[in-house]
Amino acid sequence: MAAWARAVRGLLLDVSGVLYDSGDGGGVPIAGSVEAVSRIKASGLKLRFCTNETQATREKFVKKLQGLGFDISVAEVTAPAPAACRILKERNLRPHLLVHDDLVPEFAGIDKANPNCVIIGDAAENFTYANLNEAFRVLIGMEKPVLISLGRGRYYKETDGLKLDVGAYMKALEYACDIEAEVVGKPAGMFFESALAEMGVPAQQAIMIGDDIVNDVGGAQRCGMRGVQVRTGKYRPSDENHPHVKPDAYVNNLAEAIDVILQQM
Amino acid sequence: MAAWARAVRGLLLDVSGVLYDSGDGGGVPIAGSVEAVSRIKASGLKLRFCTNETQATREKFVKKLQGLGFDISVAEVTAPAPAACRILKERNLRPHLLVHDDLVPEFAGIDKANPNCVIIGDAAENFTYANLNEAFRVLIGMEKPVLISLGRGRYYKETDGLKLDVGAYMKALEYACDIEAEVVGKPAGMFFESALAEMGVPAQQAIMIGDDIVNDVGGAQRCGMRGVQVRTGKYRPSDENHPHVKPDAYVNNLAEAIDVILQQM
Repeated sequence: MAAWARAVRGLLLDVSGVLYDSGDGGGVPIAGSVEAVSRIKASGLKLRFCTNETQATREKFVKKLQGLGFDISVAEVTAPAPAACRILKERNLRPHLLVHDDLVPEFAGIDKANPNCVIIGDAAENFTYANLNEAFRVLIGMEKPVLISLGRGRYYKETDGLKLDVGAYMKALEYACDIEAEVVGKPAGMFFESALAEMGVPAQQAIMIGDDIVNDVGGAQRCGMRGVQVRTGKYRPSDENHPHVKPDAYVNNLAEAIDVILQQM
Repeated sequence: MAAWARAVRGLLLDVSGVLYDSGDGGGVPIAGSVEAVSRIKASGLKLRFCTNETQATREKFVKKLQGLGFDISVAEVTAPAPAACRILKERNLRPHLLVHDDLVPEFAGIDKANPNCVIIGDAAENFTYANLNEAFRVLIGMEKPVLISLGRGRYYKETDGLKLDVGAYMKALEYACDIEAEVVGKPAGMFFESALAEMGVPAQQAIMIGDDIVNDVGGAQRCGMRGVQVRTGKYRPSDENHPHVKPDAYVNNLAEAIDVILQQM
Protein backbone atom coordinates (compact mmCIF):
# COMPACT_ATOMS: atom_id res chain seq x y z
CA MET A 1 0.00 0.00 0.00
CA ALA A 2 1.28 3.44 -1.00
CA ALA A 3 4.49 1.96 -2.37
CA TRP A 4 4.88 5.21 -4.30
CA ALA A 5 5.59 7.03 -1.03
CA ARG A 6 8.42 4.83 0.27
CA ALA A 7 12.17 5.52 0.47
CA VAL A 8 11.85 9.25 -0.11
CA ARG A 9 14.52 11.78 0.83
CA GLY A 10 13.44 14.81 -1.13
CA LEU A 11 10.36 16.49 -2.57
CA LEU A 12 9.97 18.85 -5.49
CA LEU A 13 6.76 20.85 -5.23
CA ASP A 14 5.10 22.68 -8.07
CA VAL A 15 3.68 25.93 -6.72
CA SER A 16 0.72 27.28 -8.73
CA GLY A 17 -2.18 24.83 -8.45
CA VAL A 18 -0.46 22.89 -5.63
CA LEU A 19 0.30 25.50 -2.97
CA TYR A 20 -2.17 28.14 -4.17
CA ASP A 21 -4.45 29.21 -6.99
CA SER A 22 -3.07 32.39 -8.56
CA GLY A 23 -5.28 35.27 -9.58
CA ASP A 24 -6.14 38.90 -8.99
CA GLY A 25 -5.04 40.17 -5.61
CA GLY A 26 -2.35 37.48 -5.34
CA GLY A 27 -4.53 34.37 -5.27
CA VAL A 28 -5.63 32.05 -2.47
CA PRO A 29 -3.90 29.15 -0.69
CA ILE A 30 -5.21 25.65 -1.41
CA ALA A 31 -6.69 24.18 1.78
CA GLY A 32 -4.10 22.33 3.85
CA SER A 33 -1.09 23.37 1.76
CA VAL A 34 0.36 25.93 4.20
CA GLU A 35 0.43 23.28 6.94
CA ALA A 36 1.74 20.64 4.51
CA VAL A 37 4.81 22.74 3.70
CA SER A 38 5.49 23.26 7.42
CA ARG A 39 5.16 19.53 8.05
CA ILE A 40 7.65 18.72 5.26
CA LYS A 41 10.18 21.11 6.80
CA ALA A 42 9.67 19.65 10.28
CA SER A 43 10.12 16.11 8.91
CA GLY A 44 13.69 16.57 7.76
CA LEU A 45 12.83 15.79 4.13
CA LYS A 46 14.74 17.90 1.59
CA LEU A 47 12.51 20.32 -0.29
CA ARG A 48 12.66 22.48 -3.45
CA PHE A 49 9.91 24.56 -4.97
CA CYS A 50 10.13 23.80 -8.68
CA THR A 51 8.05 26.30 -10.63
CA ASN A 52 7.65 27.55 -14.17
CA GLU A 53 6.35 30.82 -12.74
CA THR A 54 7.58 33.71 -14.87
CA GLN A 55 5.12 36.47 -14.00
CA ALA A 56 7.40 37.90 -11.31
CA THR A 57 10.94 37.86 -9.99
CA ARG A 58 11.61 35.11 -7.47
CA GLU A 59 11.80 37.80 -4.76
CA LYS A 60 8.34 39.11 -5.53
CA PHE A 61 6.91 35.63 -6.02
CA VAL A 62 8.26 34.43 -2.67
CA LYS A 63 7.01 37.54 -0.92
CA LYS A 64 3.52 36.85 -2.25
CA LEU A 65 3.62 33.25 -1.02
CA GLN A 66 4.93 34.34 2.38
CA GLY A 67 1.99 36.74 2.53
CA LEU A 68 -0.32 33.77 1.98
CA GLY A 69 1.30 32.06 4.99
CA PHE A 70 3.86 29.77 3.34
CA ASP A 71 7.26 29.05 4.88
CA ILE A 72 9.35 29.63 1.74
CA SER A 73 12.53 31.54 0.83
CA VAL A 74 14.08 32.65 -2.46
CA ALA A 75 16.95 30.20 -2.03
CA GLU A 76 14.51 27.28 -2.09
CA VAL A 77 13.01 28.16 -5.49
CA THR A 78 14.08 26.69 -8.85
CA ALA A 79 12.65 28.89 -11.61
CA PRO A 80 13.23 29.33 -15.37
CA ALA A 81 14.52 32.90 -15.54
CA PRO A 82 17.82 32.33 -13.68
CA ALA A 83 18.37 29.16 -15.72
CA ALA A 84 17.81 31.19 -18.89
CA CYS A 85 20.30 33.84 -17.74
CA ARG A 86 22.97 31.15 -17.36
CA ILE A 87 22.33 30.01 -20.96
CA LEU A 88 22.41 33.59 -22.30
CA LYS A 89 25.81 34.19 -20.71
CA GLU A 90 27.27 30.85 -21.83
CA ARG A 91 26.28 31.41 -25.45
CA ASN A 92 26.72 35.20 -25.72
CA LEU A 93 23.04 35.66 -26.50
CA ARG A 94 21.38 39.08 -26.25
CA PRO A 95 17.64 38.64 -25.75
CA HIS A 96 14.61 40.50 -26.98
CA LEU A 97 12.23 39.92 -24.05
CA LEU A 98 8.58 39.00 -24.46
CA VAL A 99 7.89 38.53 -20.76
CA HIS A 100 5.83 39.93 -17.92
CA ASP A 101 6.92 43.41 -16.77
CA ASP A 102 7.56 42.02 -13.30
CA LEU A 103 10.04 39.44 -14.62
CA VAL A 104 12.29 41.97 -16.37
CA PRO A 105 14.50 42.63 -13.28
CA GLU A 106 15.70 38.97 -13.44
CA PHE A 107 17.48 39.97 -16.67
CA ALA A 108 19.02 43.16 -15.24
CA GLY A 109 22.62 42.00 -15.72
CA ILE A 110 22.08 40.88 -19.33
CA ASP A 111 23.06 42.84 -22.47
CA LYS A 112 19.89 43.32 -24.50
CA ALA A 113 21.20 45.64 -27.24
CA ASN A 114 20.98 44.42 -30.84
CA PRO A 115 19.18 41.16 -29.90
CA ASN A 116 20.18 37.80 -31.37
CA CYS A 117 17.49 35.71 -29.67
CA VAL A 118 13.98 36.03 -28.28
CA ILE A 119 12.97 34.95 -24.77
CA ILE A 120 9.30 34.27 -24.24
CA GLY A 121 7.76 33.82 -20.79
CA ASP A 122 4.23 33.94 -19.46
CA ALA A 123 3.82 37.56 -20.50
CA ALA A 124 0.07 37.61 -19.69
CA GLU A 125 -1.28 41.09 -20.55
CA ASN A 126 1.95 41.72 -22.48
CA PHE A 127 0.80 39.11 -25.01
CA THR A 128 -0.59 41.83 -27.23
CA TYR A 129 -0.92 41.69 -31.00
CA ALA A 130 1.77 44.37 -31.31
CA ASN A 131 4.22 42.62 -28.96
CA LEU A 132 3.78 39.27 -30.68
CA ASN A 133 4.37 40.87 -34.09
CA GLU A 134 7.49 42.56 -32.73
CA ALA A 135 8.95 39.31 -31.34
CA PHE A 136 8.12 37.61 -34.62
CA ARG A 137 9.93 40.29 -36.65
CA VAL A 138 13.03 39.98 -34.48
CA LEU A 139 13.06 36.21 -35.04
CA ILE A 140 12.30 36.20 -38.77
CA GLY A 141 15.03 38.78 -39.29
CA MET A 142 17.70 36.35 -37.98
CA GLU A 143 19.56 33.99 -40.25
CA LYS A 144 18.95 31.18 -37.75
CA PRO A 145 16.20 32.28 -35.33
CA VAL A 146 16.79 31.38 -31.64
CA LEU A 147 13.67 31.23 -29.48
CA ILE A 148 14.05 30.37 -25.80
CA SER A 149 10.79 29.59 -24.00
CA LEU A 150 10.43 29.73 -20.22
CA GLY A 151 8.27 26.61 -20.00
CA ARG A 152 5.88 25.03 -22.47
CA GLY A 153 2.67 24.86 -20.40
CA ARG A 154 -0.62 24.84 -22.29
CA TYR A 155 -2.73 26.71 -19.77
CA TYR A 156 -3.18 27.32 -16.06
CA LYS A 157 -5.96 28.16 -13.70
CA GLU A 158 -6.40 31.52 -12.04
CA THR A 159 -9.17 32.38 -9.63
CA ASP A 160 -11.20 33.86 -12.53
CA GLY A 161 -10.70 30.94 -14.90
CA LEU A 162 -8.28 29.14 -17.22
CA LYS A 163 -5.63 31.18 -19.06
CA LEU A 164 -3.37 30.33 -21.98
CA ASP A 165 0.17 29.70 -20.82
CA VAL A 166 3.47 30.50 -22.52
CA GLY A 167 3.46 27.23 -24.49
CA ALA A 168 0.56 28.37 -26.65
CA TYR A 169 2.35 31.56 -27.67
CA MET A 170 5.61 29.65 -28.10
CA LYS A 171 3.79 27.42 -30.62
CA ALA A 172 2.49 30.48 -32.49
CA LEU A 173 6.04 31.82 -32.96
CA GLU A 174 7.45 28.36 -33.74
CA TYR A 175 4.89 27.91 -36.49
CA ALA A 176 5.26 31.41 -37.92
CA CYS A 177 9.07 31.07 -38.13
CA ASP A 178 9.18 27.32 -38.85
CA ILE A 179 11.54 26.72 -35.93
CA GLU A 180 11.62 24.80 -32.67
CA ALA A 181 11.99 26.67 -29.38
CA GLU A 182 14.49 25.66 -26.71
CA VAL A 183 12.53 25.14 -23.50
CA VAL A 184 13.97 26.23 -20.16
CA GLY A 185 11.90 25.11 -17.18
CA LYS A 186 9.70 22.06 -16.72
CA PRO A 187 9.51 19.57 -18.47
CA ALA A 188 13.15 20.03 -19.61
CA GLY A 189 15.33 17.33 -18.04
CA MET A 190 18.14 19.80 -17.23
CA PHE A 191 15.75 21.85 -15.15
CA PHE A 192 14.67 18.94 -12.93
CA GLU A 193 18.28 17.80 -12.66
CA SER A 194 19.45 21.17 -11.41
CA ALA A 195 16.65 21.15 -8.81
CA LEU A 196 17.75 17.66 -7.68
CA ALA A 197 21.38 18.81 -7.51
CA GLU A 198 20.43 21.86 -5.45
CA MET A 199 18.61 19.49 -3.08
CA GLY A 200 21.43 16.91 -3.08
CA VAL A 201 19.06 13.98 -3.57
CA PRO A 202 19.20 11.39 -6.39
CA ALA A 203 16.20 11.09 -8.70
CA GLN A 204 15.30 7.65 -7.34
CA GLN A 205 14.72 9.11 -3.86
CA ALA A 206 12.72 12.13 -4.98
CA ILE A 207 9.05 12.76 -5.72
CA MET A 208 7.70 15.60 -7.84
CA ILE A 209 4.19 16.72 -6.84
CA GLY A 210 2.33 18.84 -9.37
CA ASP A 211 -1.00 19.57 -11.03
CA ASP A 212 0.31 19.33 -14.62
CA ILE A 213 0.19 15.81 -15.96
CA VAL A 214 2.70 16.47 -18.74
CA ASN A 215 5.09 19.13 -17.45
CA ASP A 216 5.25 18.09 -13.79
CA VAL A 217 4.48 14.38 -13.71
CA GLY A 218 5.71 13.28 -17.14
CA GLY A 219 8.83 15.46 -17.01
CA ALA A 220 9.83 14.20 -13.55
CA GLN A 221 9.26 10.56 -14.47
CA ARG A 222 11.49 10.91 -17.53
CA CYS A 223 14.25 11.99 -15.13
CA GLY A 224 13.83 8.87 -12.98
CA MET A 225 11.77 10.54 -10.27
CA ARG A 226 8.34 9.52 -9.12
CA GLY A 227 5.58 11.89 -10.27
CA VAL A 228 2.38 12.47 -8.30
CA GLN A 229 -0.56 14.48 -9.59
CA VAL A 230 -2.78 16.47 -7.24
CA ARG A 231 -6.47 16.92 -8.05
CA THR A 232 -6.21 20.68 -7.52
CA GLY A 233 -5.24 23.61 -9.76
CA LYS A 234 -5.51 22.84 -13.46
CA TYR A 235 -6.19 19.12 -12.84
CA ARG A 236 -9.05 17.82 -14.97
CA PRO A 237 -10.66 14.35 -14.64
CA SER A 238 -9.67 13.61 -18.27
CA ASP A 239 -6.01 13.76 -17.16
CA GLU A 240 -6.56 10.31 -15.62
CA ASN A 241 -6.95 8.91 -19.15
CA HIS A 242 -3.85 10.61 -20.50
CA PRO A 243 -2.53 8.57 -23.46
CA HIS A 244 1.15 8.79 -22.48
CA VAL A 245 1.61 9.78 -18.85
CA LYS A 246 0.57 7.61 -15.92
CA PRO A 247 1.40 9.20 -12.53
CA ASP A 248 2.84 7.05 -9.75
CA ALA A 249 -0.14 8.19 -7.69
CA TYR A 250 -3.09 10.57 -7.61
CA VAL A 251 -3.86 12.49 -4.44
CA ASN A 252 -6.72 14.87 -3.75
CA ASN A 253 -4.33 17.63 -2.70
CA LEU A 254 -0.86 18.32 -1.32
CA ALA A 255 -1.97 17.73 2.28
CA GLU A 256 -3.05 14.18 1.42
CA ALA A 257 0.24 13.48 -0.36
CA ILE A 258 2.24 14.64 2.65
CA ASP A 259 0.06 12.59 5.02
CA VAL A 260 0.88 9.43 3.08
CA ILE A 261 4.58 10.22 2.63
CA LEU A 262 5.13 11.03 6.30
CA GLN A 263 3.29 7.87 7.38
CA GLN A 264 5.80 5.83 5.35
CA MET A 265 8.86 7.36 6.99
CA MET B 1 10.47 28.05 -73.18
CA ALA B 2 7.82 29.05 -70.65
CA ALA B 3 6.10 25.67 -70.92
CA TRP B 4 4.43 26.50 -67.62
CA ALA B 5 2.33 29.16 -69.38
CA ARG B 6 0.85 26.98 -72.16
CA ALA B 7 -2.68 25.64 -72.62
CA VAL B 8 -4.21 27.91 -69.99
CA ARG B 9 -7.91 28.71 -69.83
CA GLY B 10 -8.24 30.13 -66.34
CA LEU B 11 -6.27 32.00 -63.70
CA LEU B 12 -6.64 32.10 -59.94
CA LEU B 13 -5.02 35.19 -58.46
CA ASP B 14 -4.09 35.65 -54.84
CA VAL B 15 -4.79 39.26 -53.87
CA SER B 16 -2.65 40.52 -50.98
CA GLY B 17 0.98 40.56 -52.06
CA VAL B 18 0.07 40.00 -55.73
CA LEU B 19 -2.37 42.80 -56.56
CA TYR B 20 -1.46 45.11 -53.68
CA ASP B 21 0.40 45.40 -50.39
CA SER B 22 -2.13 45.87 -47.59
CA GLY B 23 -1.59 48.32 -44.76
CA ASP B 24 -2.83 51.45 -43.05
CA GLY B 25 -4.96 53.61 -45.31
CA GLY B 26 -5.90 50.63 -47.49
CA GLY B 27 -2.49 49.76 -48.90
CA VAL B 28 -0.84 50.38 -52.27
CA PRO B 29 -1.11 48.60 -55.64
CA ILE B 30 1.91 46.60 -56.78
CA ALA B 31 3.38 48.19 -59.91
CA GLY B 32 1.78 46.82 -63.08
CA SER B 33 -0.93 44.79 -61.33
CA VAL B 34 -3.88 47.07 -62.14
CA GLU B 35 -3.04 46.84 -65.85
CA ALA B 36 -2.35 43.11 -65.60
CA VAL B 37 -5.90 42.43 -64.31
CA SER B 38 -7.36 44.52 -67.15
CA ARG B 39 -5.29 42.60 -69.71
CA ILE B 40 -6.48 39.23 -68.30
CA LYS B 41 -10.09 40.36 -68.67
CA ALA B 42 -9.51 41.62 -72.22
CA SER B 43 -7.83 38.31 -73.17
CA GLY B 44 -10.88 36.13 -72.62
CA LEU B 45 -9.14 34.02 -69.95
CA LYS B 46 -11.38 32.99 -67.06
CA LEU B 47 -10.42 34.67 -63.77
CA ARG B 48 -11.13 34.24 -60.04
CA PHE B 49 -9.61 36.14 -57.16
CA CYS B 50 -8.78 33.45 -54.61
CA THR B 51 -7.97 35.04 -51.26
CA ASN B 52 -7.67 34.08 -47.60
CA GLU B 53 -8.51 37.68 -46.71
CA THR B 54 -10.67 37.73 -43.60
CA GLN B 55 -10.18 41.27 -42.32
CA ALA B 56 -13.28 42.54 -44.11
CA THR B 57 -16.46 41.43 -45.82
CA ARG B 58 -16.04 40.72 -49.53
CA GLU B 59 -18.04 43.89 -50.26
CA LYS B 60 -15.67 46.09 -48.29
CA PHE B 61 -12.60 44.29 -49.57
CA VAL B 62 -13.70 44.69 -53.20
CA LYS B 63 -14.54 48.34 -52.68
CA LYS B 64 -11.03 48.94 -51.37
CA LEU B 65 -9.48 47.23 -54.39
CA GLN B 66 -11.72 49.17 -56.76
CA GLY B 67 -10.52 52.31 -55.02
CA LEU B 68 -6.95 51.27 -55.84
CA GLY B 69 -7.94 51.02 -59.51
CA PHE B 70 -8.63 47.29 -59.91
CA ASP B 71 -11.39 45.93 -62.18
CA ILE B 72 -12.91 43.48 -59.66
CA SER B 73 -16.39 42.58 -58.42
CA VAL B 74 -17.71 40.66 -55.40
CA ALA B 75 -18.93 37.82 -57.63
CA GLU B 76 -15.36 37.15 -58.78
CA VAL B 77 -13.98 36.59 -55.26
CA THR B 78 -13.55 33.21 -53.55
CA ALA B 79 -13.00 33.81 -49.81
CA PRO B 80 -13.07 31.70 -46.63
CA ALA B 81 -15.96 33.27 -44.70
CA PRO B 82 -18.76 32.25 -47.11
CA ALA B 83 -17.24 28.76 -47.33
CA ALA B 84 -17.26 28.59 -43.52
CA CYS B 85 -20.91 29.67 -43.42
CA ARG B 86 -21.85 26.76 -45.68
CA ILE B 87 -20.09 24.35 -43.30
CA LEU B 88 -21.77 25.86 -40.23
CA LYS B 89 -25.21 25.41 -41.77
CA GLU B 90 -24.52 21.88 -42.99
CA ARG B 91 -23.35 20.72 -39.56
CA ASN B 92 -25.62 22.80 -37.31
CA LEU B 93 -22.65 24.56 -35.77
CA ARG B 94 -23.07 27.77 -33.77
CA PRO B 95 -19.78 29.67 -33.76
CA HIS B 96 -17.97 31.75 -31.20
CA LEU B 97 -16.19 34.24 -33.48
CA LEU B 98 -12.57 35.29 -33.02
CA VAL B 99 -12.40 37.41 -36.17
CA HIS B 100 -11.87 40.97 -37.33
CA ASP B 101 -14.78 43.31 -36.51
CA ASP B 102 -15.20 44.02 -40.21
CA LEU B 103 -15.73 40.33 -41.02
CA VAL B 104 -18.62 39.84 -38.58
CA PRO B 105 -21.34 40.86 -41.10
CA GLU B 106 -20.45 37.79 -43.23
CA PHE B 107 -21.89 35.71 -40.36
CA ALA B 108 -25.07 37.78 -40.01
CA GLY B 109 -27.43 34.91 -40.88
CA ILE B 110 -25.77 32.45 -38.49
CA ASP B 111 -27.06 31.46 -35.03
CA LYS B 112 -24.31 32.27 -32.55
CA ALA B 113 -26.11 31.55 -29.26
CA ASN B 114 -24.66 28.86 -26.98
CA PRO B 115 -21.65 28.19 -29.25
CA ASN B 116 -20.50 24.67 -30.12
CA CYS B 117 -17.47 25.65 -32.20
CA VAL B 118 -14.91 28.45 -32.53
CA ILE B 119 -14.12 30.22 -35.80
CA ILE B 120 -10.78 31.96 -35.98
CA GLY B 121 -9.86 34.40 -38.75
CA ASP B 122 -7.20 37.04 -39.15
CA ALA B 123 -8.53 39.02 -36.20
CA ALA B 124 -5.55 41.43 -36.18
CA GLU B 125 -6.06 43.92 -33.30
CA ASN B 126 -8.76 41.59 -31.95
CA PHE B 127 -6.01 39.06 -31.16
CA THR B 128 -5.87 40.31 -27.58
CA TYR B 129 -4.85 38.27 -24.54
CA ALA B 130 -8.45 38.45 -23.26
CA ASN B 131 -10.01 37.37 -26.58
CA LEU B 132 -7.61 34.45 -26.98
CA ASN B 133 -8.34 33.28 -23.42
CA GLU B 134 -12.06 33.53 -24.13
CA ALA B 135 -11.85 31.47 -27.33
CA PHE B 136 -9.70 28.94 -25.46
CA ARG B 137 -12.24 28.61 -22.64
CA VAL B 138 -15.08 28.03 -25.12
CA LEU B 139 -13.05 25.25 -26.77
CA ILE B 140 -11.76 23.56 -23.63
CA GLY B 141 -15.29 23.52 -22.25
CA MET B 142 -16.51 21.31 -25.13
CA GLU B 143 -16.44 17.55 -24.93
CA LYS B 144 -14.92 17.44 -28.44
CA PRO B 145 -13.61 20.92 -29.31
CA VAL B 146 -14.29 22.08 -32.89
CA LEU B 147 -11.97 24.82 -34.18
CA ILE B 148 -12.49 26.12 -37.72
CA SER B 149 -9.67 28.29 -39.03
CA LEU B 150 -10.08 30.69 -41.96
CA GLY B 151 -6.73 29.90 -43.51
CA ARG B 152 -3.47 28.73 -41.97
CA GLY B 153 -1.06 31.41 -43.18
CA ARG B 154 2.04 32.04 -41.08
CA TYR B 155 2.44 35.77 -41.71
CA TYR B 156 1.85 38.44 -44.30
CA LYS B 157 3.34 41.75 -45.24
CA GLU B 158 1.70 45.09 -44.65
CA THR B 159 3.15 48.43 -45.63
CA ASP B 160 4.59 48.82 -42.11
CA GLY B 161 6.09 45.32 -41.90
CA LEU B 162 5.39 41.62 -41.45
CA LYS B 163 2.43 40.56 -39.28
CA LEU B 164 1.48 37.21 -37.77
CA ASP B 165 -1.38 35.62 -39.70
CA VAL B 166 -4.26 33.48 -38.45
CA GLY B 167 -2.23 30.26 -38.68
CA ALA B 168 0.01 31.29 -35.79
CA TYR B 169 -2.95 31.87 -33.48
CA MET B 170 -4.63 28.70 -34.76
CA LYS B 171 -1.52 26.79 -33.65
CA ALA B 172 -1.68 28.40 -30.20
CA LEU B 173 -5.26 27.18 -29.69
CA GLU B 174 -4.54 23.77 -31.24
CA TYR B 175 -1.68 23.25 -28.81
CA ALA B 176 -3.54 24.53 -25.76
CA CYS B 177 -6.51 22.23 -26.45
CA ASP B 178 -4.54 19.33 -27.98
CA ILE B 179 -6.73 19.38 -31.10
CA GLU B 180 -6.38 19.92 -34.83
CA ALA B 181 -8.23 22.77 -36.51
CA GLU B 182 -10.27 22.32 -39.69
CA VAL B 183 -8.92 24.79 -42.23
CA VAL B 184 -11.25 26.62 -44.59
CA GLY B 185 -9.48 28.64 -47.29
CA LYS B 186 -6.13 28.04 -48.97
CA PRO B 187 -4.40 25.53 -48.92
CA ALA B 188 -7.48 23.32 -48.38
CA GLY B 189 -8.21 21.31 -51.54
CA MET B 190 -11.96 21.93 -51.32
CA PHE B 191 -11.37 25.67 -51.44
CA PHE B 192 -9.35 25.59 -54.67
CA GLU B 193 -11.84 23.12 -56.17
CA SER B 194 -14.77 25.41 -55.50
CA ALA B 195 -12.87 28.31 -57.14
CA LEU B 196 -12.19 26.11 -60.19
CA ALA B 197 -15.86 25.06 -60.33
CA GLU B 198 -16.97 28.70 -60.12
CA MET B 199 -14.64 29.41 -63.06
CA GLY B 200 -15.68 26.29 -64.98
CA VAL B 201 -12.09 25.33 -65.80
CA PRO B 202 -10.41 22.00 -65.02
CA ALA B 203 -7.33 22.06 -62.76
CA GLN B 204 -5.03 21.04 -65.64
CA GLN B 205 -5.90 24.23 -67.54
CA ALA B 206 -5.59 26.60 -64.58
CA ILE B 207 -2.70 28.49 -62.99
CA MET B 208 -2.65 29.83 -59.45
CA ILE B 209 -0.47 32.93 -59.01
CA GLY B 210 0.46 33.84 -55.45
CA ASP B 211 3.14 35.10 -53.10
CA ASP B 212 2.79 32.27 -50.55
CA ILE B 213 4.94 29.27 -51.43
CA VAL B 214 2.97 26.86 -49.23
CA ASN B 215 -0.62 28.09 -49.22
CA ASP B 216 -0.86 29.38 -52.80
CA VAL B 217 1.68 27.40 -54.80
CA GLY B 218 1.80 24.14 -52.85
CA GLY B 219 -1.96 24.04 -52.29
CA ALA B 220 -2.75 24.63 -55.96
CA GLN B 221 -0.24 22.06 -57.15
CA ARG B 222 -1.75 19.42 -54.87
CA CYS B 223 -5.06 20.04 -56.70
CA GLY B 224 -3.48 19.43 -60.09
CA MET B 225 -3.07 23.09 -61.02
CA ARG B 226 0.14 24.84 -61.91
CA GLY B 227 1.45 27.14 -59.19
CA VAL B 228 3.50 30.27 -59.89
CA GLN B 229 5.16 32.37 -57.20
CA VAL B 230 5.59 36.12 -57.61
CA ARG B 231 8.60 37.85 -56.08
CA THR B 232 6.35 40.46 -54.43
CA GLY B 233 4.42 40.61 -51.15
CA LYS B 234 5.68 38.18 -48.53
CA TYR B 235 8.07 36.45 -50.99
CA ARG B 236 11.51 35.88 -49.49
CA PRO B 237 14.59 34.64 -51.39
CA SER B 238 14.76 31.61 -49.07
CA ASP B 239 11.42 30.46 -50.52
CA GLU B 240 13.37 29.37 -53.59
CA ASN B 241 15.03 26.68 -51.46
CA HIS B 242 11.79 25.41 -49.95
CA PRO B 243 12.26 21.76 -48.92
CA HIS B 244 8.88 20.56 -50.23
CA VAL B 245 7.35 23.00 -52.70
CA LYS B 246 8.83 23.77 -56.12
CA PRO B 247 6.74 26.28 -58.12
CA ASP B 248 6.14 25.70 -61.83
CA ALA B 249 7.70 29.12 -62.32
CA TYR B 250 8.95 32.23 -60.54
CA VAL B 251 8.07 35.65 -61.92
CA ASN B 252 9.11 39.04 -60.64
CA ASN B 253 5.52 40.20 -60.37
CA LEU B 254 2.01 39.65 -61.71
CA ALA B 255 2.62 41.86 -64.75
CA GLU B 256 5.49 39.63 -65.87
CA ALA B 257 3.40 36.47 -65.40
CA ILE B 258 0.61 37.90 -67.53
CA ASP B 259 3.08 39.01 -70.22
CA VAL B 260 4.35 35.43 -70.56
CA ILE B 261 0.90 33.80 -70.38
CA LEU B 262 -0.59 36.11 -73.01
CA GLN B 263 2.38 35.60 -75.34
CA GLN B 264 1.67 31.84 -75.28
CA MET B 265 -1.96 32.19 -76.28
